[in-house]
Amino acid sequence: MAMKTAPALTPERQAFYDGLAPDNMAPLWERFSSLIAPEPRSIVRPCAWSYAAARPKIMRAGELITAKEAERRVLILENPGFKGQSRITNTLYAGWQLILPGEVAPNHRHSQSALRFVVEGEGAYTAVDGERTLMREGDFVITPAWTWHDHGNDSQKPMVWLDGLDIPIVGFFEASFAEGHADDRQALTRPEGDSLARYGSGLMPEGYKGGKHGRTSPVLNYPYARTREALARMSQAGPPDSCHGHRLNYVNPETGAWAMPTIGPSMRLLPKGFATELYRSTDAQVFSAVEGHGTVTIGDTVLSWQKRDVFVVPGWIKFSIFADAESVLFSFSDRPVQEALGLWREDRGNH
Amino acid sequence: MAMKTAPALTPERQAFYDGLAPDNMAPLWERFSSLIAPEPRSIVRPCAWSYAAARPKIMRAGELITAKEAERRVLILENPGFKGQSRITNTLYAGWQLILPGEVAPNHRHSQSALRFVVEGEGAYTAVDGERTLMREGDFVITPAWTWHDHGNDSQKPMVWLDGLDIPIVGFFEASFAEGHADDRQALTRPEGDSLARYGSGLMPEGYKGGKHGRTSPVLNYPYARTREALARMSQAGPPDSCHGHRLNYVNPETGAWAMPTIGPSMRLLPKGFATELYRSTDAQVFSAVEGHGTVTIGDTVLSWQKRDVFVVPGWIKFSIFADAESVLFSFSDRPVQEALGLWREDRGNH
Amino acid sequence: MAMKTAPALTPERQAFYDGLAPDNMAPLWERFSSLIAPEPRSIVRPCAWSYAAARPKIMRAGELITAKEAERRVLILENPGFKGQSRITNTLYAGWQLILPGEVAPNHRHSQSALRFVVEGEGAYTAVDGERTLMREGDFVITPAWTWHDHGNDSQKPMVWLDGLDIPIVGFFEASFAEGHADDRQALTRPEGDSLARYGSGLMPEGYKGGKHGRTSPVLNYPYARTREALARMSQAGPPDSCHGHRLNYVNPETGAWAMPTIGPSMRLLPKGFATELYRSTDAQVFSAVEGHGTVTIGDTVLSWQKRDVFVVPGWIKFSIFADAESVLFSFSDRPVQEALGLWREDRGNH
Amino acid sequence: MAMKTAPALTPERQAFYDGLAPDNMAPLWERFSSLIAPEPRSIVRPCAWSYAAARPKIMRAGELITAKEAERRVLILENPGFKGQSRITNTLYAGWQLILPGEVAPNHRHSQSALRFVVEGEGAYTAVDGERTLMREGDFVITPAWTWHDHGNDSQKPMVWLDGLDIPIVGFFEASFAEGHADDRQALTRPEGDSLARYGSGLMPEGYKGGKHGRTSPVLNYPYARTREALARMSQAGPPDSCHGHRLNYVNPETGAWAMPTIGPSMRLLPKGFATELYRSTDAQVFSAVEGHGTVTIGDTVLSWQKRDVFVVPGWIKFSIFADAESVLFSFSDRPVQEALGLWREDRGNH
Repeated sequence: MAMKTAPALTPERQAFYDGLAPDNMAPLWERFSSLIAPEPRSIVRPCAWSYAAARPKIMRAGELITAKEAERRVLILENPGFKGQSRITNTLYAGWQLILPGEVAPNHRHSQSALRFVVEGEGAYTAVDGERTLMREGDFVITPAWTWHDHGNDSQKPMVWLDGLDIPIVGFFEASFAEGHADDRQALTRPEGDSLARYGSGLMPEGYKGGKHGRTSPVLNYPYARTREALARMSQAGPPDSCHGHRLNYVNPETGAWAMPTIGPSMRLLPKGFATELYRSTDAQVFSAVEGHGTVTIGDTVLSWQKRDVFVVPGWIKFSIFADAESVLFSFSDRPVQEALGLWREDRGNH
Repeated sequence: MAMKTAPALTPERQAFYDGLAPDNMAPLWERFSSLIAPEPRSIVRPCAWSYAAARPKIMRAGELITAKEAERRVLILENPGFKGQSRITNTLYAGWQLILPGEVAPNHRHSQSALRFVVEGEGAYTAVDGERTLMREGDFVITPAWTWHDHGNDSQKPMVWLDGLDIPIVGFFEASFAEGHADDRQALTRPEGDSLARYGSGLMPEGYKGGKHGRTSPVLNYPYARTREALARMSQAGPPDSCHGHRLNYVNPETGAWAMPTIGPSMRLLPKGFATELYRSTDAQVFSAVEGHGTVTIGDTVLSWQKRDVFVVPGWIKFSIFADAESVLFSFSDRPVQEALGLWREDRGNH
Repeated sequence: MAMKTAPALTPERQAFYDGLAPDNMAPLWERFSSLIAPEPRSIVRPCAWSYAAARPKIMRAGELITAKEAERRVLILENPGFKGQSRITNTLYAGWQLILPGEVAPNHRHSQSALRFVVEGEGAYTAVDGERTLMREGDFVITPAWTWHDHGNDSQKPMVWLDGLDIPIVGFFEASFAEGHADDRQALTRPEGDSLARYGSGLMPEGYKGGKHGRTSPVLNYPYARTREALARMSQAGPPDSCHGHRLNYVNPETGAWAMPTIGPSMRLLPKGFATELYRSTDAQVFSAVEGHGTVTIGDTVLSWQKRDVFVVPGWIKFSIFADAESVLFSFSDRPVQEALGLWREDRGNH
Repeated sequence: MAMKTAPALTPERQAFYDGLAPDNMAPLWERFSSLIAPEPRSIVRPCAWSYAAARPKIMRAGELITAKEAERRVLILENPGFKGQSRITNTLYAGWQLILPGEVAPNHRHSQSALRFVVEGEGAYTAVDGERTLMREGDFVITPAWTWHDHGNDSQKPMVWLDGLDIPIVGFFEASFAEGHADDRQALTRPEGDSLARYGSGLMPEGYKGGKHGRTSPVLNYPYARTREALARMSQAGPPDSCHGHRLNYVNPETGAWAMPTIGPSMRLLPKGFATELYRSTDAQVFSAVEGHGTVTIGDTVLSWQKRDVFVVPGWIKFSIFADAESVLFSFSDRPVQEALGLWREDRGNH
């Protein structure tokens, strides 16, 4: 909403404005249109990261520093719109984390919530809250805010996953707490698969009141095997959504809402040759390709992607994804926050 | 709460009371203690039904009437405390339903919610809302209120399941609606397993707003395979609860609350030789044994049960279940309603 | 849903049915249509109670027994459809309670929830949870389930109010608990008006987590002065609803839902000469006239009512209320339960 | 959480880091401790604005520009920690808005939510959603996100209120939309007081489903008369909370939650001579004094305040407020967002 006419800047007014600053005041009408924008103008830039190109650097990092020395050995994926700010979008952080056979990323906890989406490897673990889960490609793993968590790799192969955290959000609200633990590995008190059995199988334990991790899902690992099968079933039931393909969102089984309060994760299946209809929403989205390859057109920018690549679509810019082969794409964004605050909007089609 | 002293019945008072009735009035103080009981005194009687004993009768019913002629060929399990009232507890109905190879139980819908718990057979189906599910022993299937549903058996074996419905509740609230359909079988619009894929796998479809079936779970079939595995995992994680064993409740993945608003279904695993600690709650519970055998002591009554048998525990009577072998027991009650109304209470132990 | 053809009763079948009873079983198909009704057929009868006619009897009760001896001196309003059952509808109890100057109705508590709607008098009190509220005509007062409550009258005038309780509901679920207190009057720990200030003024105390009385409103007294003014404002804003007039429902300020989980209270204003459009809903409704006079047509029955009278409209029968003068009517029903269970339906107009 | 030892910066590592930047990557371990802070270190500075000192400038603004030309004639209160950023805290905006007799601040709407807290004057109005409310000192008025709103002053006196908006939050999420309206004043469709009658009196209209303004309260104006009386009642009921005094939070009567999803408003009464116990929470708080005068100690900073002054307390710094006279203080912060995201923490006392 631009003001109809910008107020004229008379010498009298300028003198008045100059006198306000020492009192920590300023005239709203001089700043109005920059504060209350008529439509989002995202600073986020469309960008893609090729896993094939990055992999040697990820592995080189494995030579230069240990997981333990680094605390977490991650290459941050930094959006060119936010140089030096460690953000992949305006509100979220992402990075590729490497853990080599025999390594441990030591036990710590923090206010920031994290997702781990497995990109390469099989058999490294994440431990949260006394339970350890072995990870496989395509698995979606949650470490809820303020839960102790450590990672390790007892397999013979390196593992790389995509980290997604709400670091900029927690920073914006100036509410970050963190602490390390004396022991690198947490004590295990529950067997593998315990949280999936208790909370992720259509059941809840007698006496459980809910909210074990606040609004975050109590399920530690959403295995790809189950997600992939659900997508396959869904694709048999009818045509894909024109904008989303066959799309399922990860939810908290206690509430049916997003699996995390600050990050909304999704998985979608695009049939071979399918191009999504133009679409935009106010949340910038981070994609990680799980199967297939194709392109994405974001405004005037065209980016190619293949399995394991990451790309970012800024908010409120129309985009279309094209799948050269049957493809599966994981994605996440800050949509749960925008919905909670009443800010989220979407817009389908080319009008 | 008994009144300290019952009010004396003087001739003057009696004359007054007699004069009230024609005006549709009555003195509360003459009825107070029967209306506001100090503690529940259930009319429900402890009772068990042997499947082995009943099976010939169930099969005989199959000879005497077809599923179609009967609309639903069910032998009602009627609590001796409610003779002629078709109730297994004060508020719930149960019965064994038989469907023979080649038969159809025609499409209809009603305000009453139903659960089907498969007791014998494999391969008959229930169709709800355009989706058909093939049923196996131990599967828990829901037909939500006011959804079209039909059953059929395209397998070579008879199938028997336990029906649980809220018929007395709907009757008490005088809110029963029902209608039949011109076609015996509903049109199928979604493939087998569709609802489990969409809502029961830690995911929800993009754009889904929830509440497809009100407060009832959108998942049609909770397969025993998944439930049994969850129980097995849970039993590895620690000792059984002293009153409940390893117990999981079926929930609606949209809310984390009971899978149905009027009926609360559970499954529990009791290790061989385990006896539950004395326990009582205000909801009368109906049990159906899935694996194992044992006894149940309800107040002074001892009943034996084995696989496929049904038994009832009245509300607010202390009971203990003993498992002679590793056992799995399905159960259901009206607890979701009592909780919603703030009426439910439980009491653990022998004090 | 009547079955298309009732199953024929052959001798063979009869013999089979006879053999089931000893085993506590029965054939569903013989009872189907009485259990699963195609449409509600309420046992409740349309009925009105004239306060003018009843008042001498209420006062006579005051001579024959004290409030303390009676525990609660109430003349039950008993629906002729439920003779001897102390119900005004299928699921609710109502009665006129008298408390004379200087009397005390002693402190007790029970699982049953109660509303008090003041019909005559000013200055008697209800005490709940350490707070005492002085009552005036038209005030709506709640005594939540299992809260200690006592009543007294320190004024110079008798007070009569309408009691509404969920006694039949608690009875149906066999979940009644009650106890008396050694002291007739509870200790007061909070000043008059405390709950209205804390919870009923658009505010909540810092640190308050909600649910002080479960799903029941924490507000003790909804004063008529405020309710009447809200109705007056509403009537200035536009025409009345054709079926309801200007109608407001009492809500729990913690949830926006009904003020009580088992009883739904409302107040409506009908302009002089207004006749509501035909309407029916599955909940039977109890009305108490606060201002004005008129008639109500329920199916074929026409009843007259004036200020302080009570009348009952059964569920699922079309009715219309006519106001000879500007009128205000309080009403209550079991609609919150029916909504929670997914059973409630309404039907507007004459079609 | 500082890392035990910062990773050494070898030439080899530096070379590696330098090679990452062109690929939009960076090493997390070099930035870890700045991204994941062990404890909040707020950029917000303790600051107070004297209304007496500012009033001549506010009035001078009234001479230099009209409300209409300015769109909104507001002097922004800018925190010295965020120079040029128009923020009073890290996440919120505030300013004093002046509207002179006969003026209009034209009709517009935007994604940003606003509160108005009246500081001086009586009789200017805010119109939202077809309803106009006349404002008095101490009134708390809401203009929900994306609702049309205009202000005007038909009284004889200038009015000044404190604006509180979530401008930085909406900016951070890049989700700002705004538009102006052809007409300066919106059409009025509901009488004064309509929303308070319908939603703010313990009642809700029959048929109302809730969510008229999303998670924002449907009540337009929370009048000071009612709030002040509630504080007075509360102060009679017991001693003040040691950290908060007698404190009530403004809530949405549909949910019992904060009146706005992004801004949490409160009012507290401090008795004469009362000093609050040391306290801190993660949300920075903006205070506006309504009655009384005193001081506030924030860490090492001591600020004086009197009626109408504004002061800011940064997050996670211990503070104590001292009241020289009986005082009433309005305050607001981003606590609703922090709670929704699971980030909010508080800490009572001096330990």
